[in-house]
Amino acid sequence: MPGITINDVGPRDGLQNQQKILSPDERVQLIRALLAAGLRHVEAGSFVSPKAVPAMAGADRVLAGLKNEFAAVFTVLVPNFRGYELAREAGAKRVNAVVYGSEGMAQANVGMSRQQADEAASLIADQAGQDGIGVMVTIAVAFECPFDGPVSSGLVEKSARRFLELGAEEISIADTIGAAHPGQVRALTASLVERHGVDRFSCHFHDTRAMGLANVFAALESGIRKFDAAIGGLGGCPFAPGASGNVATEDVVMMLEQMGFDTGIDLRGLMRASALARDLTGTAPGGRARPWLERHLA
Amino acid sequence: MPGITINDVGPRDGLQNQQKILSPDERVQLIRALLAAGLRHVEAGSFVSPKAVPAMAGADRVLAGLKNEFAAVFTVLVPNFRGYELAREAGAKRVNAVVYGSEGMAQANVGMSRQQADEAASLIADQAGQDGIGVMVTIAVAFECPFDGPVSSGLVEKSARRFLELGAEEISIADTIGAAHPGQVRALTASLVERHGVDRFSCHFHDTRAMGLANVFAALESGIRKFDAAIGGLGGCPFAPGASGNVATEDVVMMLEQMGFDTGIDLRGLMRASALARDLTGTAPGGRARPWLERHLA
Repeated sequence: MPGITINDVGPRDGLQNQQKILSPDERVQLIRALLAAGLRHVEAGSFVSPKAVPAMAGADRVLAGLKNEFAAVFTVLVPNFRGYELAREAGAKRVNAVVYGSEGMAQANVGMSRQQADEAASLIADQAGQDGIGVMVTIAVAFECPFDGPVSSGLVEKSARRFLELGAEEISIADTIGAAHPGQVRALTASLVERHGVDRFSCHFHDTRAMGLANVFAALESGIRKFDAAIGGLGGCPFAPGASGNVATEDVVMMLEQMGFDTGIDLRGLMRASALARDLTGTAPGGRARPWLERHLA
Repeated sequence: MPGITINDVGPRDGLQNQQKILSPDERVQLIRALLAAGLRHVEAGSFVSPKAVPAMAGADRVLAGLKNEFAAVFTVLVPNFRGYELAREAGAKRVNAVVYGSEGMAQANVGMSRQQADEAASLIADQAGQDGIGVMVTIAVAFECPFDGPVSSGLVEKSARRFLELGAEEISIADTIGAAHPGQVRALTASLVERHGVDRFSCHFHDTRAMGLANVFAALESGIRKFDAAIGGLGGCPFAPGASGNVATEDVVMMLEQMGFDTGIDLRGLMRASALARDLTGTAPGGRARPWLERHLA
């Protein structure tokens, strides 16, 4: 069976919007449950100001708690160069630098212009290369921005090319707010894969408009073989439960395994991790396929 | 914008599994709400024994209640030749004869063998041709049967060819239990379209495993331009709310309109029809995109 890689971003993207803040120990506990289910790629946290995102405070302690987990690849998000330095100090082996498809989102997220965020990511990529730290670059709001509207695919393609040339080992095409439709995803990913091959691309979808799995399939059609997902569909706005989280890891793994891909992930283990996420946060909706999965795995 | 056709099967497939039985007048009311939203294709009922499916009793009264709705195409399901005769007596202009991808489902649904169901559908197609009544043929459990497991695509292709040759104006490829994954849907529909063109095919998906929209997109990729859907995602098993209904009309229309297709259907009108379905049945989950749609359309 062809292989595929799932990167669980629940411990980062999934937790930063929750009303309940998890301690570093609780985050380590959640990540261990993901590893027990077979996940080998996890976004473990973000080196962002604790004032801006209190839920990510103590990312260094999360990494310290995982230091003997040699079988997995942990990535941490770094919103700026200072974040990169903190991640490096904490022993991070792989960082995720973020650039933006729109001015509005760059300003709202990190108080920079698009151009400034691009420059920060370039500096991080360059320094990480010198430090022997792996670097991936996320292109956030790659389809639509909640402030500025539709994002041009030309801009995303230019950004992808730039950071591939700068040595990013992976470019993540992120539908940050869950606004993309599968036709767009198919077109953009096909164009990127045609130009640059498939090895260094991944996709990141949210399920806000229930098109998460359709978008995963659209990217698969273009040849993409690496996806972000969040255990339990974590990531929803606390004021609209179940409405806008990341596409759930259990939904994505269910579909991919049914399609004959080998994810290396055990669905029963994922259901246990999802239940833990729910217990810890009090809010994880558990993915859209949960009713079926619960009957099927019973 | 390219056109697309949505056939709402809520008043038939959606209602036959509900615990609460709607009167013919209530079903007419629901269908009028669909017409008000712009739907022009509706499966209005089934001419099946009221003992077998009490919720479909009085299908003749539903058709009578719609007799002045000239702008829409109403189809009624006919499980056997007797059902066809009753539909004809009731003035039906278009019938849906059903054949099966498996023995188990043919036996469970109509107490016939696959072969017997094929013969009944042939007789119906022949007689309908003589009577000037339109006929479509649904191939039920075209991917997987809950009793017999996976269904061979060769069998489905053979069945489709046979009924196209017998003059069916439409062949509906039905994932009756919501088990198909988009890779299968893509492969089967691509093969059918390559052999027979696209004009006479439609697809029917359930959202049991949350892959409804992914499957719609997969069929779109193959060129399919007609889909069944049920208002409010009606059709779920009463013992697993929200788990196994038809793919919701509002979800499908949202995705298609966002993709640039012209469905001719108004989402606000659909939300009103969905609310009516919920009020009448007490159970319609309202589709998976509802939280977003409610915010978006507010």
